[in-house]
Amino acid sequence: MHEKCGVAAIALTERAGARPLYYSLYALQHRGQESAGIVTHDGFQQYAHVETGLVGDVFAADDLDELRGNVGIGHVRYPTSGGTDACCAQPFSVSFKSGSLGLAHNGNLVNTADVRADLEERGHAFTTWGDTEVIAHDLAHNLLEADLVRAVKRTMDRLHGSYSLTIAHDDTIMGVRDPLGNRPLCIGDLGDGYVLASESAAIDTLDGDLIRDVRPGELVVLAEDGSGFDSYQLASPPRSAGCFFEYVYFARPDSVIDGNLVYEVRRELGRRLWAENPATTDVVMPVPDSGRAFASGYAEAASEAPMSEIPAGNGDARGEAATDEGSPDVEFAEGLMKNRYVGRTFIMPSQDERERAVRLKLNPIKSTVSGKSVTLIDDSIVRGTTSTQLVELLHDAGARAVHVRIGAPPIVAPCYMGIDMASREELIASDKTTEEVRETLGADSLAYLSIDAIAETLERERPDLCLGCVTGNYPYDIDGEVTDRDVQRPAVGDASARAAGDD
Amino acid sequence: MHEKCGVAAIALTERAGARPLYYSLYALQHRGQESAGIVTHDGFQQYAHVETGLVGDVFAADDLDELRGNVGIGHVRYPTSGGTDACCAQPFSVSFKSGSLGLAHNGNLVNTADVRADLEERGHAFTTWGDTEVIAHDLAHNLLEADLVRAVKRTMDRLHGSYSLTIAHDDTIMGVRDPLGNRPLCIGDLGDGYVLASESAAIDTLDGDLIRDVRPGELVVLAEDGSGFDSYQLASPPRSAGCFFEYVYFARPDSVIDGNLVYEVRRELGRRLWAENPATTDVVMPVPDSGRAFASGYAEAASEAPMSEIPAGNGDARGEAATDEGSPDVEFAEGLMKNRYVGRTFIMPSQDERERAVRLKLNPIKSTVSGKSVTLIDDSIVRGTTSTQLVELLHDAGARAVHVRIGAPPIVAPCYMGIDMASREELIASDKTTEEVRETLGADSLAYLSIDAIAETLERERPDLCLGCVTGNYPYDIDGEVTDRDVQRPAVGDASARAAGDD
Amino acid sequence: MHEKCGVAAIALTERAGARPLYYSLYALQHRGQESAGIVTHDGFQQYAHVETGLVGDVFAADDLDELRGNVGIGHVRYPTSGGTDACCAQPFSVSFKSGSLGLAHNGNLVNTADVRADLEERGHAFTTWGDTEVIAHDLAHNLLEADLVRAVKRTMDRLHGSYSLTIAHDDTIMGVRDPLGNRPLCIGDLGDGYVLASESAAIDTLDGDLIRDVRPGELVVLAEDGSGFDSYQLASPPRSAGCFFEYVYFARPDSVIDGNLVYEVRRELGRRLWAENPATTDVVMPVPDSGRAFASGYAEAASEAPMSEIPAGNGDARGEAATDEGSPDVEFAEGLMKNRYVGRTFIMPSQDERERAVRLKLNPIKSTVSGKSVTLIDDSIVRGTTSTQLVELLHDAGARAVHVRIGAPPIVAPCYMGIDMASREELIASDKTTEEVRETLGADSLAYLSIDAIAETLERERPDLCLGCVTGNYPYDIDGEVTDRDVQRPAVGDASARAAGDD
Amino acid sequence: MHEKCGVAAIALTERAGARPLYYSLYALQHRGQESAGIVTHDGFQQYAHVETGLVGDVFAADDLDELRGNVGIGHVRYPTSGGTDACCAQPFSVSFKSGSLGLAHNGNLVNTADVRADLEERGHAFTTWGDTEVIAHDLAHNLLEADLVRAVKRTMDRLHGSYSLTIAHDDTIMGVRDPLGNRPLCIGDLGDGYVLASESAAIDTLDGDLIRDVRPGELVVLAEDGSGFDSYQLASPPRSAGCFFEYVYFARPDSVIDGNLVYEVRRELGRRLWAENPATTDVVMPVPDSGRAFASGYAEAASEAPMSEIPAGNGDARGEAATDEGSPDVEFAEGLMKNRYVGRTFIMPSQDERERAVRLKLNPIKSTVSGKSVTLIDDSIVRGTTSTQLVELLHDAGARAVHVRIGAPPIVAPCYMGIDMASREELIASDKTTEEVRETLGADSLAYLSIDAIAETLERERPDLCLGCVTGNYPYDIDGEVTDRDVQRPAVGDASARAAGDD
Repeated sequence: MHEKCGVAAIALTERAGARPLYYSLYALQHRGQESAGIVTHDGFQQYAHVETGLVGDVFAADDLDELRGNVGIGHVRYPTSGGTDACCAQPFSVSFKSGSLGLAHNGNLVNTADVRADLEERGHAFTTWGDTEVIAHDLAHNLLEADLVRAVKRTMDRLHGSYSLTIAHDDTIMGVRDPLGNRPLCIGDLGDGYVLASESAAIDTLDGDLIRDVRPGELVVLAEDGSGFDSYQLASPPRSAGCFFEYVYFARPDSVIDGNLVYEVRRELGRRLWAENPATTDVVMPVPDSGRAFASGYAEAASEAPMSEIPAGNGDARGEAATDEGSPDVEFAEGLMKNRYVGRTFIMPSQDERERAVRLKLNPIKSTVSGKSVTLIDDSIVRGTTSTQLVELLHDAGARAVHVRIGAPPIVAPCYMGIDMASREELIASDKTTEEVRETLGADSLAYLSIDAIAETLERERPDLCLGCVTGNYPYDIDGEVTDRDVQRPAVGDASARAAGDD
Repeated sequence: MHEKCGVAAIALTERAGARPLYYSLYALQHRGQESAGIVTHDGFQQYAHVETGLVGDVFAADDLDELRGNVGIGHVRYPTSGGTDACCAQPFSVSFKSGSLGLAHNGNLVNTADVRADLEERGHAFTTWGDTEVIAHDLAHNLLEADLVRAVKRTMDRLHGSYSLTIAHDDTIMGVRDPLGNRPLCIGDLGDGYVLASESAAIDTLDGDLIRDVRPGELVVLAEDGSGFDSYQLASPPRSAGCFFEYVYFARPDSVIDGNLVYEVRRELGRRLWAENPATTDVVMPVPDSGRAFASGYAEAASEAPMSEIPAGNGDARGEAATDEGSPDVEFAEGLMKNRYVGRTFIMPSQDERERAVRLKLNPIKSTVSGKSVTLIDDSIVRGTTSTQLVELLHDAGARAVHVRIGAPPIVAPCYMGIDMASREELIASDKTTEEVRETLGADSLAYLSIDAIAETLERERPDLCLGCVTGNYPYDIDGEVTDRDVQRPAVGDASARAAGDD
Repeated sequence: MHEKCGVAAIALTERAGARPLYYSLYALQHRGQESAGIVTHDGFQQYAHVETGLVGDVFAADDLDELRGNVGIGHVRYPTSGGTDACCAQPFSVSFKSGSLGLAHNGNLVNTADVRADLEERGHAFTTWGDTEVIAHDLAHNLLEADLVRAVKRTMDRLHGSYSLTIAHDDTIMGVRDPLGNRPLCIGDLGDGYVLASESAAIDTLDGDLIRDVRPGELVVLAEDGSGFDSYQLASPPRSAGCFFEYVYFARPDSVIDGNLVYEVRRELGRRLWAENPATTDVVMPVPDSGRAFASGYAEAASEAPMSEIPAGNGDARGEAATDEGSPDVEFAEGLMKNRYVGRTFIMPSQDERERAVRLKLNPIKSTVSGKSVTLIDDSIVRGTTSTQLVELLHDAGARAVHVRIGAPPIVAPCYMGIDMASREELIASDKTTEEVRETLGADSLAYLSIDAIAETLERERPDLCLGCVTGNYPYDIDGEVTDRDVQRPAVGDASARAAGDD
Repeated sequence: MHEKCGVAAIALTERAGARPLYYSLYALQHRGQESAGIVTHDGFQQYAHVETGLVGDVFAADDLDELRGNVGIGHVRYPTSGGTDACCAQPFSVSFKSGSLGLAHNGNLVNTADVRADLEERGHAFTTWGDTEVIAHDLAHNLLEADLVRAVKRTMDRLHGSYSLTIAHDDTIMGVRDPLGNRPLCIGDLGDGYVLASESAAIDTLDGDLIRDVRPGELVVLAEDGSGFDSYQLASPPRSAGCFFEYVYFARPDSVIDGNLVYEVRRELGRRLWAENPATTDVVMPVPDSGRAFASGYAEAASEAPMSEIPAGNGDARGEAATDEGSPDVEFAEGLMKNRYVGRTFIMPSQDERERAVRLKLNPIKSTVSGKSVTLIDDSIVRGTTSTQLVELLHDAGARAVHVRIGAPPIVAPCYMGIDMASREELIASDKTTEEVRETLGADSLAYLSIDAIAETLERERPDLCLGCVTGNYPYDIDGEVTDRDVQRPAVGDASARAAGDD
C-alpha cells in the first residue's frame, strides 16, 4: 500500500546466503527503516527472520547463523504514518501444497482490492491488509496449476501497478520487475553466485559486478547452485514508466539505475538548473545532504558559464557579483551545518521555541551567509515546511537575498506507485503557482527544473517515465486520476522553467 | 501442537470488552506465559493486539483503549521448548470473503496434517505451522458455503483431537468444546453480558457468576449485545474424555471444572492417598506450592483416622509415632521454603555448585526435618529430577526417613491432548516399576494414588476420563498409540496403589 | 533513611567470592528488590557492580566473572516511595588515603545529620543524601588516625541508630552489628571460608553451617584467606533491642535469628493467638502467604484444645461448631487463592472496577467460605486497606461471619529503625481502638496478639526487644518520640489480648 | 583522564534552564556520545539528571520538567576504550558545608594524582577515579576557607593541565578556562540571560549571540538572575596553548573558536594544502564528511591557480590534466559515498569478507574514479587504517593514481590534553617517515600540511598553540615527555610540507 522499500535476493555456489543478504540490506537501508527481514532455504526447509527495526538491530550474529542455506531473499521496509505493526514486515512467507513461498516487494499495486476479492471468492483468507500477501496467494494459487514461469506470468497478468519483487519458491530464487519498470531492480555477478537488488550499491557492497538492470516485464530465475540465471520476458509493453524521483531523491548517489549513475544525474540536473534559471549570487549552497550533488553541478556550470550566456533579468546576480568578462565569481560553500544527532527521541520545543528546533538541525554559518546574496539548492519541495524555515533562517543570519533553486519540477500530485510522499492537500505546489509558492517560502526568487530537463538528462522520451507526481497524469489506471495515455504532451516543463521572482 | 493455553471471550451490553478480557487473561496467566493476545470487534472492524510476553507486559493502558468494541476474545499461550516465535501467538486472525475471523485455541488436534493437506489441495497457503491457522482456514472455508452453525459443525466434524475454542466472527462471539470435552471451558454471567473462559476463576475475577460448563460438543453463541447466549449441541458422543490432570496440576485451585472445585478435588485426592497408602511419620510436608492441597487433605485424613484402620506393613510409622489409641500424632508442617525470586534470568551454578541451586529454590527448615521421619507430598512425578533432589535435600537436612506420596498415578506415556509434559523417554515411570522409581529417588518408600481413586473422586466412570498419560491408552486415534476403546479395563490402579518400599 | 535491606560478606580460601555472594543475595532478595550490588577485592584492587533492579536482572554471568577476588560484600536494597535513583544503591564505595572502602548497610541511623555536619565541618563533600556515605566517610576518617579495630570502634561510638554493616576495607572483610542488635546479622562456615549474612537462609543456600549470630556491639573480621575470623566486642550495653517484626513479617520463615527459627516463632505465635483469643469457627484460613504459618499454629492449637479450655464469651464458635467433648472441629483450609502474576505492570481498573482488582490478586474459594463462619489469620495490620477488602471479599463470597486474628500487636507508631512501614497518620491503629479498627474492617470480631506473647515466645525480656512500633516508645533517642527507658512497663499487651467484637 | 567532552552553563531571568541546556547539549553531542547530564538549581536545592547514552535517550520531557530552576550546567562525555561506567558521567555533584557544587569538565589534568594525594592526606574519600571529582573536592575545600573568587583562584593555582569547566555552586553559575586556554569555552547573550558553552554553535542553537570567548585564565560568574556576568582574570601567563586539533577535526564547522570560524579555517587549510603540495589530478575528492571543507578549499585554490605557479615535480598532474594556460582543470566531486546507517550494532564480516565491510561504509562512485588520477583529501591520519583501506578501495575502483593530501601535520605523539587519540605505538607517523607512511598507505603520493600553515591560518605564533601531538613537545610538564619551553623552534613544518612520492 505504501512501500518505498528495498529488496534483495541471492544464490551462491557454496557460501551461506544470509550474511551477504544482511550486508545488502545495510546497503539498502536508506530505502526503508521500519523493518528488515531475510528468508533463506537450504534445500530442505525455509528459514525466516523478520522484525521491526533497523537492519543492525533486527539481526544478531546468531540470527544470521540460523538462516541456513545458500539462497534467499531480503527486504527493508519504509516507515509510514500508518503504524509500525510487525504484521506487514517482509519478506512475507507462506507454505502451501507445492512448498514454501517467500516474497519481498517494492512498489504498490493499484488493483489489490480486485485481486483479493477474486481470491476470497475462492476461499482464501488473509492475515494482513498488505498487497504482498495478495501477490503471494495469487502466485501460490497459480503454482498449483502451472509450471513456475507460466505461474509467474499469470500472476503478472493479474497485477496492475508497480512492483519489483524478489521471490523464493523453496530454493528457487527469482526477481520480477513490473511491465513498465517503475521500480528499479538489477542483477549482479559475485563470482561465486548471483545477486538481485533494488540498487547496484548493494552489489558494490558485496564486491560484485553489476551485470544489468532487470528489464521491465522480465522474470530472472537464479540457478539454485549459483551457476547462472535464466531470463524470461513475460511482458513487453510498448512503453516503460520508470520513476524519475528515484534519481532526484530516493536512490543512493552511488547507484546506477537503468544505465545512469544517480550522482551524475543529480550533477547534470544541477547544471541544467543553472542553465534554465541561473542566479549568479555571491554564494551557492546546498541543503545538506539532499541538495549537495545538485549544488555541485549548479556551481560548476556557473563557474564555466561565460557571462554573456546569462539570461537577462537576473539583475540580482549580474548587478552585484558578475563581471562582464570571464565566468561569474560564484562561490560554492556549505552554509548550513547539519546536526546528525537529532533523531526520533528529540523533545520538541514549545511553540515559542520552535525556531530553535530548526537551528538545532541546521545551523547557518554566518560568515558564509551574512550580507550575501545566496542561492539555496535542494532536490525537491514536497510540503514546503522545511524550505520555508530554511529561507527564514538564512534571512535571520543576515542573507541579503535568498534565491531558491530546485532540482525537480513542482510536485503537484500524489504518488500511487510506491513513494508515500503526501496527500494532494499537503503538497504545497498542488494548488499554488510557482510565484505563490515563492511567496509562501519568503524567497527572493524560486525556480524549479523543467520536466524536459529531466527527460533529456535521462535520455528518455517523456512517455517512458512515470511523471505522475509532477503532471497528475499516471501510467496506470487509478480511480479518480487521469491516465497519461489520455493527455497531450503537456507544456508544464516550459512553464516551470521560468523562475518566480525574476523579472 | 503444544498448547497448554488459556482462552476467554466476552460480549457486553455497553462496556468495552478489552479490559475485562485483560483481567480474564491475568486470571488465566498460569495456563500460559509465552504470549498473550486480545481481538475485539466494534461492529465495523476487528482490532488485535498480540505479543510474546506476560499479560502485564504485553498490554499497556493505551493498547486496551485501542481495542475497541464490546465483544472480543483473548488467549494466553504456554511456553514450549520449540521456541518463542511471535508467529504462533494467538488469537489467530484472518479476514476473508465473509468478514473477519479470530480464533483462540486450547488443546491439540491429532489430524492437523490431514486437514491441512485437504486445504492445500484447494489452494490454501499457510503462514505458520500451528493447528490454529488450519482451524481458521477450514472454518473460513465452511463459512463461505454454510450458515454459522452449520459451518462450525462441519469444521468440528473434520477436526480430531482436543480443543476448547473461542471464536470471533466479526462481532459474533462463540465458544466450542470438542465432543469429548477434553479441555475445560465454562460460561459466566456478568450482569451486563456474558463471558467464556477456560476456568471459572476468570469469571470470579470479573465478579461474575459461573453458569455452567460448556458441554462437550456444544457450540455457545453469545448475543452480540450481551443480552444472552444460544446453545447448539453439535455432537453427542456416547462418552466424554475430560483431562484429569487439570485437577491434579494444571488448573487453579479456586476454579470449578465440570462441577468440581479443584481445591476440594486435591484435598480429597490427598485424603484417599492417605487411605490407600498411609505413612504415619513424624511430619507431613508438601512440596510448595504444588503439593499443598494434597498434603492438607492427607494430614487431615491422618489426624482423623483411628489407629486401627492403619494397614499393617507401615512399620515405620506405627512403631515410632503412633499410639494404639486415638489418631496417629501426625504433624502437618511446611518443611521446604520456596524462594519466589528465582526466575528466568538466574545464572546456573557450575556443576559442583549444582546442589546449591536446588537449595536456592527450596530450602529445608531444619527443625521440621532434622531427626524426623518425613512424608513428602507432591501432585505428580514427571521426569523425577526435582523429586530426587528434594529427597536428597531432606536427607542432608537430617531426615531419618523420607516417604514420598504422590497425588496421581505414575505418568507412563506422553500427552497428545495439549499438555506438553515430556517425551516417553523422559518420563521416569515409563520404563520403571514403582520400586525402581523409589530407588532412583532415594526415598524410603514411594506410593502413587490409584486411577480408581481419581475416577471416584471426580464421580466419573473411567471411560469418561482421558487417562492416556497414566495408561498409555488414548480416547483418540493417535499414530503408534493404543486407543482406550480397544483395551480391557486395566487393573493398573490396584497395582499402583501398593506402595514401593513397604513390606 | 529507609533501608529495609539485606547484607552479605564472604572470605574464601580459593574460590572466587562473587558467585556465592550472588546466590546469597538471591536468598536475601525478599529484603530488597530495588537494587543489588557486589563489591569484591583481589588483593590489588576493588571491583564493583551495583545497579537498580532484581538480583537476577542486575548480574549477568560476565559481570560475576569480572568481580575478581576471593573476598567481597553484597547488598540488596528495599524499594521506597522516594524514588529508585541509582544514587543510593549499595554497596557504597570510596577510595581514600588508606585504600578502598566498601559498605553495605541494613538499618537506619538517627543521628545522620549530626555526623554529616561534623564531617562537613572538616571539609568532607558528599555525593548522596544517604546515611551509608556518612558512615563510609566517618570510618575512612578514623582509619587515617587509628588501626582498624579502633577506627571501627570510634565510628560505632559516633553512630546512633540501627545498623548491621558488612564492610570491605581493601581485602579485609568485616561485619558489625549495632550495640542494641536491632537488625539481624549472622556468621556461617562454608568449609572453605566464612560468610556473613542478614539471615541464615543465605548460609543454607551456600550449603554452609550457621555458626552463630553476630552479637550486638560485636565486630567480626574475616581472615582474608578464609581461614577463620576474629571477634571484637566493641560495645556492651546493658540491654539489647532486637526487632520483633523481623520474626512477624520481614524475615524468611526458614531463617534462624538470634537462636529462633522464624517459622517456629510464627507457628508458636499462632498457637498463642488461639490461646489468647480462640474463635472456634467452621474454618481457619490464612491470608496467603503472610498468615500461613500463624494460621497453621492457630489451627493446630485449636485442634488440640479440649473444649473446656475455650474461654467463655466466644459464643460464635462454641454455639455452632464445637461439641462439648474432644477438640473443637476446626478445619484448616486455604480460602483465598493468590494470583502470583499480578505485578508492577498491572493496569489498575477504574474506580468502579476497583473491587475486581482485589479479586484478581486474591480469589475466595466459595466452597470453603460460603455459609461458613470464618477465622481469617494474618501477621499484622498496617494501613488496614487490604484487610478491609478481604473481609468484604469473604462476606461477598457468602461467609456467615468473618473473625480476624492478627499475629502481632496493633502497630501504633512508625518505625525509625529501618522498616519503612508508614507514617503515623497512615497507621490504622495509631488513633483507633481495636473496636474501632474492627468496625472499619467490617469484621465480626478482631483480636491482636499481646506483646507479652511475643516476648515469651522469643524468650526475651520486653526491654530486650525494640517495640517502638507497637508501643511508641523507642530504644534510641528520636526527636519528638518517647524513649522506652523513660516509660513504665506498659500494660498494652493485656488490653490488646482482648478481642473486639467478642462479649 | 580522557575527556574529549562538551560543557554548557546557563543563567536565565525567568525561563527554566533545563530545556535550553538540553538543546545546548544536542548542539554539542559531537563532543561526546557516552553520557549526558544536567544539573540545575532553583535557589533552594540542586536537581540532577545524569545517565549514560545520547542526549536524546538520556532525557525524557518529564526529566527536563523535574530539573527546576533558571540556572544550571550540562555535560556530554566522550566514549573511551576504558568502559562506559555510569561512575564517570558528569556533571559531578557533591554537597558540602557551604552548599552544593556541580562540575562539568572538558580537558585533562596532568597532576590529578598529586592533588588527589593532598586531599586524601586531609581525609578526603573519593567515589570515582576521575579528575573531575578531584577538582570538586579541592574547590569545596577552598570554599570553606575563602570567598568564591579566591577559592576558584586557589583551585586553579593547584591544577595543572587543560580544563574548561562550568560550575554550579548552589545557584551561582560559573565558567573557567585554564590559563593556557587549551580547550574552548565561550559566552553568549540570550536576551533573557547568558550562556556558556564549549562551542558557539550551542549559542546559535539557542538563537543567542556569541559575545566572546572566555579568556585563558578567566573566571566568568553569571548573575543568578540572568542580568549579566562578572569577569575575573585569575591567571595571566605570558603565552597561550590553544588546541589546533579542535579546528582540524573536533569542533563543528559552524563554531567560532577564539575568533576563527572552524569551517573557514578548514577551507583555508585546504587552500594552503594546495599551495604547499599541489596535485593537479583529474579529480579532487574528500573523505566524507571529515575532509569535505578541506577538499573544497583545495579545489577552489586549484581552480584559481595559474598553471605557472604550480611547482615543478608534480609531473603526474601537469603531464596529464594541466594545460599551460589558465587554471588547471581540476574537478571537485564526491567519489566516496558514506552509508550513514552503519553503527554500533553492525556484525563484522569474517576475515575474508573484511574488504566488504569498508565498502559497506564508503562506496566508491566508479564513474568519478575509474581511469582517473585522484586526489583524496582528509583532515588527519591517526592510525592510518582507514586511509589504507580507502586508497585500496580507490585503486580497486580503477583509479589510475591516488594522491593523498592531509589537512594537518603528521600526528607523531599522543595527546595528554583531553583528546583520546591513540597511544604512541598506534600512531602510524610516530616512527615512520612520510615516505614510509605513503608506502604503507599504498598511495602514489602523500603530503601533510605544515605546522606553519596552521599557525599562519590561525594568526597565532607557534608558541601560542598546543602542538604536542605533532611535535612531541607539550605546553605542560608531563612525565616522560618534553616541554615545548625547552625546545628550539622546530623545523618540522618545512619537512612535512614536502610531499612523499613526488620527485
